[in-house]
Amino acid sequence: MSFATAQALVADDLDAVEALILKKASSSYAPLTEALSGLVRSGGKRVRPTIVLLAAALFPPANRHALLALAAAVEALHTATLIHDDVIDGALLRRGQSTLNAVWTPGSTVMAGDFFFARAAGLAAETENPRVIRLFAETLNTIVDGELRQALAGHDWDQPKESYYQRIYGKTAALFEVATRATAVLGSAPAGAEEAIRAYGYDLGMAFQIVDDILDFTADAAALGKPAGSDLRSGTVTLPAFYFMQQPEQRQRLFVVMEGEADGAGIDALVDAIRRSDAIDQAQAEAVHFAESAANRLAHFEPTPHQQALVDIARYVVERRR
Amino acid sequence: MSFATAQALVADDLDAVEALILKKASSSYAPLTEALSGLVRSGGKRVRPTIVLLAAALFPPANRHALLALAAAVEALHTATLIHDDVIDGALLRRGQSTLNAVWTPGSTVMAGDFFFARAAGLAAETENPRVIRLFAETLNTIVDGELRQALAGHDWDQPKESYYQRIYGKTAALFEVATRATAVLGSAPAGAEEAIRAYGYDLGMAFQIVDDILDFTADAAALGKPAGSDLRSGTVTLPAFYFMQQPEQRQRLFVVMEGEADGAGIDALVDAIRRSDAIDQAQAEAVHFAESAANRLAHFEPTPHQQALVDIARYVVERRR
Repeated sequence: MSFATAQALVADDLDAVEALILKKASSSYAPLTEALSGLVRSGGKRVRPTIVLLAAALFPPANRHALLALAAAVEALHTATLIHDDVIDGALLRRGQSTLNAVWTPGSTVMAGDFFFARAAGLAAETENPRVIRLFAETLNTIVDGELRQALAGHDWDQPKESYYQRIYGKTAALFEVATRATAVLGSAPAGAEEAIRAYGYDLGMAFQIVDDILDFTADAAALGKPAGSDLRSGTVTLPAFYFMQQPEQRQRLFVVMEGEADGAGIDALVDAIRRSDAIDQAQAEAVHFAESAANRLAHFEPTPHQQALVDIARYVVERRR
Repeated sequence: MSFATAQALVADDLDAVEALILKKASSSYAPLTEALSGLVRSGGKRVRPTIVLLAAALFPPANRHALLALAAAVEALHTATLIHDDVIDGALLRRGQSTLNAVWTPGSTVMAGDFFFARAAGLAAETENPRVIRLFAETLNTIVDGELRQALAGHDWDQPKESYYQRIYGKTAALFEVATRATAVLGSAPAGAEEAIRAYGYDLGMAFQIVDDILDFTADAAALGKPAGSDLRSGTVTLPAFYFMQQPEQRQRLFVVMEGEADGAGIDALVDAIRRSDAIDQAQAEAVHFAESAANRLAHFEPTPHQQALVDIARYVVERRR
């Protein structure tokens, strides 16, 4: 079963979520509406709202608008962080498309990100569920703290694996986790079910980000829309580079590059060496481990098409090639 | 009665609000805590939390923590917008101090602003009052929409006065308005009282921003920490410039500057002409009008020291020199 097949189970609700986000991105000022709708439309596969809507089938919430608002809030928050990441990284390309940063001024990009933060907060408030709102606010804090921490400790490339885990939790898994957990809260799920789906979201998010970090090395530059190894080039050690440097002689090589003593050709060669090394398989094995753990969490629920779709998405996340 | 005297009535609660903000600005990563606490401490007079706490005396809320959280949320949101404004404007100085933007990278500045946005959302959630949370989220939307709108329509200097009002509402008055209104909601104030204090917040915020815009022309460059007329220099027409150009020959002069055909000396001369013109008094009269309206709204309440302090603050706002 492909991601699209899993997604098709919730196609109608997903359309409603899309419409809700577009409605929130509209303004009385037409050029602004156009620019913001463009940002919404250039979004990805809607993985996060899809998971919210599939999970909701396990414990249907009484209030459909609250569910749609939660799914839209999660996607709006994701959009906001992507936009600000572009300023933070100074990125000019994302998925082969010009980022907002390359077209708008930095100031406008900051404001566009703030716009989606504000919409996310507003949508979370629309769930009118105090626990959901609180969880959502806490996650916003976790995400932002993680970013600041990474930026301030950015050049400390020699970190333990736990630091990497903490980083990808803040960057990705925290949002997957709140998406599934808040869905359970809206559906008044029993504590065991809430914990199972929360853990599914956490595991899935961790797998998702590890695979993203692998693809940063292995995908075609064309598919990435940027040179391979961009994380390493910007001074960030992700899981493949971490495993690579477990070999003492490679660690020395990485050291030279990360301390800025290597030229561009030296970095290219290092990225290529990591791409062809066992480190990729080691990182992939870890992603698969998280994805399997995610799938196992779903044993808590009756087998249904929606439950199976969530299992399939865990598989898809580690098999995808971009 | 000075602002400090009015503020002294709520000194203990204000200390508690300060402590709450500092607690929220702390992180397990010490250098980050230091940087963020510095941002909090470099804040202004805490006008907004002071108003929240004084207003709360008119309809005491049952839950003290909710009140402190609201006051802290309002100040955190104010801090967040100030920080992002620095990126948006590219400002290097604010109140004579280096802005974050001049010391941190733009990316870090974006993240620091996001940090306080996140904290504001978290603090609003801590009130656990759904209406307050919703009002707060709506205000966040209003503020951000206003900024984006101003940026995208920035070079349209020839706007009606209503556009100026709309702009300063989003920039300043909306936050004063939600501060007072949400305080009434927390205190379960009757509808008439809620409306009276909401209108007080609105009027006070409008007066506050008009005075800020006047001071941008009239205050010493040393007190401003930047050259006089900085709004005009960055292409923004505020109320003094608006009144100035009601005279046809001055309108022509402004046109030349705003269309970028004048050199630096031409702008300096224009700023100086506005500073010495009747436009300043006309704008000041309008600020006083808003401040008087704010004070009149308080006739709804029994005369008490706290009610009188709110009246005094309305007077202070239009009499201040910085």
